[in-house]
Order: sequence, then structure tokens, then C-alpha cells
Amino acid sequence: MSEKEHAFSGPSSAAIPVKGFDVAGIHCGVKPTGALDLALIASSIACRAAAVFTKNAFPAASVLYNRNLLHMNPEGTHSVVINSGNANACTGAEGNANARRMAEGAEKSLGIPDNTSFVMSTGVIGVQLPISEIEEGIPKVAARFRPDGWQEASEAIMTTDVFPKWASKQVVVGGQTVTITGISKGAGMIHPNMATMLATLVTDAVIAQPLLQKALTVAVNRSFNRISVDGDSSTNDTVLMLANGAAGNQEITEKGADYDAFVEALTAASMELAKLIVRNGEGVTKFVTIQVEGAGDDGEAHQIANSVVKSSLVKTAFYGHDANWGRILGAVGYSGATVDPTNAQLFIAAGQPEAGSKELQLVDAGTPTGYQEEDASAIFAESEISVRLSLGLGEGAATVWTCDLGHNYVSINAEYRT
Amino acid sequence: MSEKEHAFSGPSSAAIPVKGFDVAGIHCGVKPTGALDLALIASSIACRAAAVFTKNAFPAASVLYNRNLLHMNPEGTHSVVINSGNANACTGAEGNANARRMAEGAEKSLGIPDNTSFVMSTGVIGVQLPISEIEEGIPKVAARFRPDGWQEASEAIMTTDVFPKWASKQVVVGGQTVTITGISKGAGMIHPNMATMLATLVTDAVIAQPLLQKALTVAVNRSFNRISVDGDSSTNDTVLMLANGAAGNQEITEKGADYDAFVEALTAASMELAKLIVRNGEGVTKFVTIQVEGAGDDGEAHQIANSVVKSSLVKTAFYGHDANWGRILGAVGYSGATVDPTNAQLFIAAGQPEAGSKELQLVDAGTPTGYQEEDASAIFAESEISVRLSLGLGEGAATVWTCDLGHNYVSINAEYRT
Repeated sequence: MSEKEHAFSGPSSAAIPVKGFDVAGIHCGVKPTGALDLALIASSIACRAAAVFTKNAFPAASVLYNRNLLHMNPEGTHSVVINSGNANACTGAEGNANARRMAEGAEKSLGIPDNTSFVMSTGVIGVQLPISEIEEGIPKVAARFRPDGWQEASEAIMTTDVFPKWASKQVVVGGQTVTITGISKGAGMIHPNMATMLATLVTDAVIAQPLLQKALTVAVNRSFNRISVDGDSSTNDTVLMLANGAAGNQEITEKGADYDAFVEALTAASMELAKLIVRNGEGVTKFVTIQVEGAGDDGEAHQIANSVVKSSLVKTAFYGHDANWGRILGAVGYSGATVDPTNAQLFIAAGQPEAGSKELQLVDAGTPTGYQEEDASAIFAESEISVRLSLGLGEGAATVWTCDLGHNYVSINAEYRT
Repeated sequence: MSEKEHAFSGPSSAAIPVKGFDVAGIHCGVKPTGALDLALIASSIACRAAAVFTKNAFPAASVLYNRNLLHMNPEGTHSVVINSGNANACTGAEGNANARRMAEGAEKSLGIPDNTSFVMSTGVIGVQLPISEIEEGIPKVAARFRPDGWQEASEAIMTTDVFPKWASKQVVVGGQTVTITGISKGAGMIHPNMATMLATLVTDAVIAQPLLQKALTVAVNRSFNRISVDGDSSTNDTVLMLANGAAGNQEITEKGADYDAFVEALTAASMELAKLIVRNGEGVTKFVTIQVEGAGDDGEAHQIANSVVKSSLVKTAFYGHDANWGRILGAVGYSGATVDPTNAQLFIAAGQPEAGSKELQLVDAGTPTGYQEEDASAIFAESEISVRLSLGLGEGAATVWTCDLGHNYVSINAEYRT
């Protein structure tokens, strides 16, 4: 599918360079199509790092490598090298050795110490990496290094993605403007708890490493862990953050106003990257926000929202412009969370939820209101839809973002390798 | 979609009548198409009853009605009246009153006491039943009563089903041949823990009511609760069993050889009905058996198998004839069950699993074997596929049956109400 045929498009403004970071992308030979397939991001100044990894019990070689590196060297890394076209997952000892060779290739090309480069891979599972092509490519991508290479790098990490994804935020902390810029990829195998989704964020902020990790965890839980394309979480999912301190702000060493401002900016950047992944969902024609409120607690609200966004029946109804809310309540009912059918209210609206948006109430006290079917269909015909479920049980709330399930999802995934 | 275009077909032999039971189906006016939409099954002799109901937190009116009736009168019921085209779910107090009116209509028409008829409904959620049409239809369907009306009754409970489903088994218990005949429906919203799936089984066996319930629970857990079409379980799922004792066998009053023989026959009939539901899955072109063995325990094996059969990525790969086993291991990895990636073995074969069937091993010790892609694709091109995952951790095992996810699933479900 070309970008032109896709219902949504990518970022509308350019990424903002981050002091001290260079970035580039090239085609090295992993993808037979000749498309960009190798990205390199590095800081000349040593970085504090933080990361969130997939919980999949079959973690890819890169996940194992990065977990170990982060544990070993949380304050002195420089770079991340990323290939697309091959996930280096389910590849055993040879896969682990290849992940190390990728990292060593980056370290050698950049003239940085051993054990200072992270690695990521995304693409087909169970095939060994063409490691020679990657090793030959690394010096070439390093030769293209520049501060504004973000678009090219984000193109180089795409698989079934239709458009490249980046986001930038700036915020004043400790008396200085700091910049956060990130890229992400992902279009299928997308579900909370990390999906076939890679993201790298870099910042020039000065922030203690434990707080950087806390901030990233908070941001990921409010963004990447709140999106679902198809309910599959993958072997490779990683969100990595590098902070080189080049902004020279007074160091963030504890929770407080500066930390909060940083978290807010990081969360905003992460949400933009996460929502771009949903908009880029395979075969997607709808961007849907599901809000659950009045659940027993936030965990139950999230459980209910997840059950709804995993339902193929709900998602084909979005695709078919069919306001078949019975399927939504059905999925709520089998979520395992506590609900009271006689208390449930369901509302829909066009667009993303915002104050004053005009809602149509479909269900009151668990039964249909007297709404007009054509009003509901008109809302479901929009490309952005909001669904709000109010349960009347407690204070628990959660918001997730998802998409529809259409013919093109099937086409893309039935023919992925063939 | 017509039956002719569907990849699979229904039962190959006729249902066997059961002593004392009459059955029929008609069009009464629920379905605008004029197709059969009302079935009635009844015994002139009072029946012991057993049932398994949906665990959905939004149970339909019929589920609430039947749960109460079974509790109140487990040994003296006579009949079940079933409509298709409307699920009478999320319909509040009016829906509950309509379920009662359906039951009372059957009781009046058949001249049987109050509180002796079960009710079932299947179809669209959230619309009130056209109760007058059903009340007028009940005497008409009763007027067509005969012992061999099973095909007509099973047609009358279809929704998106392509073919009617029935199964019969006979077994000697307590010195007499007893017959079990059942019908089922279901094509979407199909997942373990009962789906939009209705089944009614009747038998002339003499069996104590508590044992009848035990036998049904065992049979359901080995059959209806082991199938998945799309991971959605519904508001209406019910398996009902009526036993009128007309066979005159020595009563089954305790566990032993007679009970075991009865359970075996009932399980066989239930498995036939359940597998017919998968074969009838919406847009289905593949019937897939997933066997998990070597898991920590049976529960973990089932959890792993369920995670695989709920994956849209796995199911589109079946549809696309793509032996993309990385998606299978990915789904195993996020199941939440304990696995050891370095121990996993994966095998595929054409057909249903049987002793001596020729398997192709795709994965050994968590990494690909040197199998030939064309051999794997040839197996995935078959209409019946078996997948066996061996985990090497313990004795836990489970088998589930599922199908592929294709363009027609999307078409059927995007256009269900429109």
C-alpha cells in the first residue's frame, strides 16, 4: 500500500535536532526492495540511558543484549544502531552473536568505547541477520551523520509502516530549554505491553539516570502501552531513551517542578509517536479513542478498554461504519472486570475527545436509548471516532487508542512473507 | 455467502430421532429475509435438565431466565423454544418480560405446566424482540412437530451460519441403547468459555440430574470450550441438555462404566457439533487443530493454545498459506504462561492429528530447523492443518480447534447489520 492510499499521514512538521546528537539512515542490503534499512543515532557526549522492553517470553537477541547493556552501563552509552527487514528473533546463539557484532560495528565506526552502543532489529522472525551487509553498512551510515537526519533515520526503521514517524518537544527545565526528539516504527503486532514497536528518544536534558528511567516508564505507560492495532505484542518491542546533558540545565535530581515538566514533555512526545503508530496501523481507515470511566479502579478500566480494542468484531464494525454497540458491551462483559449491566452508559462522538465535543448517547442503564441509527452511522463514518463508556461503579479510568480491522489488514498480513 | 462458496460443509448423515422428543422449525417473522427463525424441541415426558451458560457479565434475557428455571425446576422441564435473528440481549426489563412470554407461549401451546420451558435467542444485540410474531409463531411450529424435524430446527437457529449443524450418537448403558442428538449454531463471536453459540442436546437416557450436569460440564469443557473463531465470547451462549428417560435403561446414579460410556458418547456428539461451528466460521477457509504439550500443567497449555488462536496475525498467516511460525511463537511468548524459548519445538502437518501422520518440524530448541519453505507452504495450503507445540517443561497438554482470518470474515462482520 502506498502512503497516498492510506487514510492517515505522518508528522506535519520537521523533527527538532538535539544538541550533541547526530543521526542518519541508509540502505545496506537487508531489504531486497532497496529501501532504507539501517539507522544510526549517536551522541559524542556519553549518555545516561533508560529503556522499556517487551514482556514477551521469546525476547529477540537485541532485547537480551540491550537489557544486559543497560544493567552494565546505565550512564556511559553513546549510540543505537537499528536495522529493519529482519527481527533477529528466534535465532538462538548465532542471533545473539550477531546482535553483539552490530553493536561492535557501531562502536568501531564511531570510535567510542566497548559496550556503549545499543542495537535494535525489526522485521521477519526466525531468519538469521545478513550480518556482513550490516557490518559493511555501519561505516557508510556513520559517514552521513548530521544533526537533522531524523527523517532518513525514521524511514530506515520502517517495516510495513506507510509513513515515517517522529516527534519533538521543547520545555524549559532548570533554567534551560531542553529538547526531546524521538522516532518510532510499528504498524502490526501492536498491543499494550509493547508491540512490534521500536522507539528511540533522545534529549539534551541533564537528568539523573534513575529519574530518566522513571520518567520514561511513566511516559510509556501513558502512550505506547495504551495503543492497540491487533492485540499481538512482539518479541522485539523496545523504547530506548538517551540523555546526553548537552543543554546544560541544572540537573534534575529529584521529583519536583522540573521533573514534572520533563515528564510532561516526554509524555507528549511519546503520545505523538504512539498515536502515529495507530494511524499507520496496517490497513487502517479509522483512528478510535476508547475512554472507560467509572470502573472499580484504573486497572479494571484498562482491562475493560483492552478487551474492547482486542475484539475483531468491534473493529470490523468500525471498519463497516456500523455502530454495533452490542459488540462493545459484549467485549466489556467478557473482560473479566466487574461491571453492572444496569448501570452502563455508552456515548460516541466524531473526532478525538475534547471538552464540548458533541456526544450521542447509545446506551443508558444497559439498554438502548432512542437514538437514531443514521446519527450513529454518521459518526462511525468519520475517520476519527471517540467511544466513552461510563460504568458508574467507582473512580477507575483509562484511555486507549486503536483502529479498525479491514480488508487491507488481512491482505497485508496474509502476504507478509510471500 | 452461500453454502456453495464456503470451504466446508455440514453433517453428512441425518440426525437420529430420540424417543419421546418432537421437533420443528418455521419462519415466524423475526428475520426480514423470510428464512426459518423459530425452533421448538419438546418431550411429552418430563425431563431432567442440565446447562452451561456464558460467563459474560452482560448475560442476555434468555440466560437469566434459564439459569433461574434450571435452579427452580431441574427435574421437571419439557421443552426449549429458540428464535434466531434477535439476541434479546441488552434489552433490560422489557427483554426479561419477553423471554418469559416466549416460554409461556411454548407452555400454553404444548399444554405443559408453567415453568417447564427453556428459551434461547440469537442474533443482533440491543433490539427488542418482535414478541407478537414469536407468540403467533409458537402454535404454528408446534403444529409441525415430528420426531425427525431436526434439520428444520437446526436451520431455524442459524444466524450467519452457512449450514445447519446436528450430531447424533448411540451407546449402550444400563442394558439399553440410548440416543443423544443435538443441534448447534454459531459462526462468529466464537471463543472458549462459550461464544455466540447455542446448542441443545436431548437424550432418552435415564440418568440422575446431578450426573447429567456433571457429564454435560465435562463434555462442554472438552468441546465447545475448546473452539475459537474470533476470540469474542457472547452474551447468549448456552448449551442445554434435556433427558427424558424414555430409553428405559437402568438409571445411571453414580460414576462407573455406564456413566463413562454416556460421557464418552456425549463428548463425541459435542465435539462434532463444536467442530462444525469452527468449519462454519465466518469466512473460514482453514480448519486448524492446535496441540500444546509439555507445558507446566493443563491450564498453562490451554492458556498458550488460546493465545495462539486469538492472534489475528497467526490467523491471517493460515489464510495466506504462509507458514510464518514466528507469529505462533510470538503469541506463545505473550500468553503469560511459563515457557523456555531454548526448549520449544514446533511441528505442522496436513489434516487432523492422528497416529502416524507425517509432520514437518519447523522449530527445534527455539530456532528454525533447516526445513524447506515449499514443504511448509504445501502443508499450509491444505484446508485442514495441525500445529503441535512441544514445550519440554512438564505434562500439561491441551487441544483447541480454530480457523483462519480472511477477507470474508471482515466482509461479513463489517456488513452484519447494514
